[in-house]
Amino acid sequence: MEWINNKTVMIVGLGLIGGSYAMALNRIGYHVTAIDVSEETIAYAKEKKMIDDGAAFPDPKLIGEADCIVIALYPSKIIDWIKENQKYFKPGVILTDVTGIKSSVVYDLQDILRDDAEFIAAHPMAGREVYGVKNSDERIFRDANFIIVPTKNNSAESIKWCEDLGRLLGFGRVSVLSPEEHDNMIAFVSQLTHCIAVSLMTCDDNEHLAEYTGDSFRDLTRIANINENMWPELFFMNKEPLLRRLDQFIDEINVIKGMIKDSDEEGLKEKMRLSTKRRKIFDKDS
Amino acid sequence: MEWINNKTVMIVGLGLIGGSYAMALNRIGYHVTAIDVSEETIAYAKEKKMIDDGAAFPDPKLIGEADCIVIALYPSKIIDWIKENQKYFKPGVILTDVTGIKSSVVYDLQDILRDDAEFIAAHPMAGREVYGVKNSDERIFRDANFIIVPTKNNSAESIKWCEDLGRLLGFGRVSVLSPEEHDNMIAFVSQLTHCIAVSLMTCDDNEHLAEYTGDSFRDLTRIANINENMWPELFFMNKEPLLRRLDQFIDEINVIKGMIKDSDEEGLKEKMRLSTKRRKIFDKDS
Repeated sequence: MEWINNKTVMIVGLGLIGGSYAMALNRIGYHVTAIDVSEETIAYAKEKKMIDDGAAFPDPKLIGEADCIVIALYPSKIIDWIKENQKYFKPGVILTDVTGIKSSVVYDLQDILRDDAEFIAAHPMAGREVYGVKNSDERIFRDANFIIVPTKNNSAESIKWCEDLGRLLGFGRVSVLSPEEHDNMIAFVSQLTHCIAVSLMTCDDNEHLAEYTGDSFRDLTRIANINENMWPELFFMNKEPLLRRLDQFIDEINVIKGMIKDSDEEGLKEKMRLSTKRRKIFDKDS
Repeated sequence: MEWINNKTVMIVGLGLIGGSYAMALNRIGYHVTAIDVSEETIAYAKEKKMIDDGAAFPDPKLIGEADCIVIALYPSKIIDWIKENQKYFKPGVILTDVTGIKSSVVYDLQDILRDDAEFIAAHPMAGREVYGVKNSDERIFRDANFIIVPTKNNSAESIKWCEDLGRLLGFGRVSVLSPEEHDNMIAFVSQLTHCIAVSLMTCDDNEHLAEYTGDSFRDLTRIANINENMWPELFFMNKEPLLRRLDQFIDEINVIKGMIKDSDEEGLKEKMRLSTKRRKIFDKDS
């Protein structure tokens, strides 16, 4: 694709996702640079040839050389980073991000962004229960979903650029949603599920569960191993959709509880048939 | 093990679990027979050499030849089957079951059982989202948990027999719990998790989820593909422990919801640290 040739991509924040972007883009042939607060992280990424160059501070020269910038910071840090460093941007630079919430970041960011730069939001729906550059692995993108989240301020070209990026990284499916659609969906499939997994793990102190459990409990709590520095921030920055989704789920499980209490066999069967039908559609489509 | 030699094991009910028992025990060298309501199931199991003999009715001769009987029926059918057919039992026969709830079956069963027979309850914690004899596969027992659920009426010999059975079937871990401990634990790790998975699937009618979801939602709803003929029965026969567990979980997720509403970052971090710590212990032990 045209935009690859002789382009420099800078990753800001070499965590699990930023590091995996670096690996994938470097392998494809980009000149990849990075900025991270940790000297050790930059040294590691250079040694492992994940990046061609990098700095543990916002190096004006490195920033100014980048044609594309991927912001892979915690969501609360993104706006400040742009404010402080956009004076160094190359005119025409295109930026994207990797964060899991959009409305509370993308509009503010586009408002303060220089007129000669463009920010197109994206959410790579890949991750692991481990983090940090040393766990980076571009294979986490295989068969995963990549969601582009444009606003009316985005050009058709930047949306196309972001689609190409998702495909180059190896994602299985690339979709487009509005920030509001994205946040409402993510509150359901990701944030609510993490609240459920944590609640399951914290509501009971049985430390001998592994001796007795089947796969169900293991599956439902895999994501209960959770980064406590990132997730509260994601929850607070998407508070309204998440609280709505929590209520939606809690109302439903109370209905199911009522059916169990009342021995409402037909009611439960109907719920289970619907559940099975939807899960089968889901399996077919994924 | 001594009890293997020249013994006949009869499986009553050739579903996924009964069929998988038959496969494993036949391969080891038992004479395996079966009774199932379906002619087709018996014919299939014979043809596939899962069983040596079988009948689609409670054949007195087959029942009378069995040294061990594995009742793999839906829980509500077990007592009636024993009542109707124990007149054919060989004196000294040992029986076990595979059902997922215990208190509501085992005491009644032992009360009505002939004095020259012994019933020792067991719960093979293995399963799949598919069912029926054609999906039988003894590999589902590998690394899974097998729980023996004796009462004060059980002999040390029968408990030892059941341990041997679990190991012969290939289970990774064999444990012993009282009926009450078992039911309280299973209400939590299995029944509650199924209620959660179904609620997640039925509380929202978005049929395009697969395009957007990461692994979290997929993991939490795998078991939402559920056998609606069996599970309501399991829930009703373990109603009190399950309702208690549902309340325990719903109370906790409401606490988490409150923390999100109040932007209680420290509270959430503490929950997530506890959740992560417990999940790591669980991974280490399983």
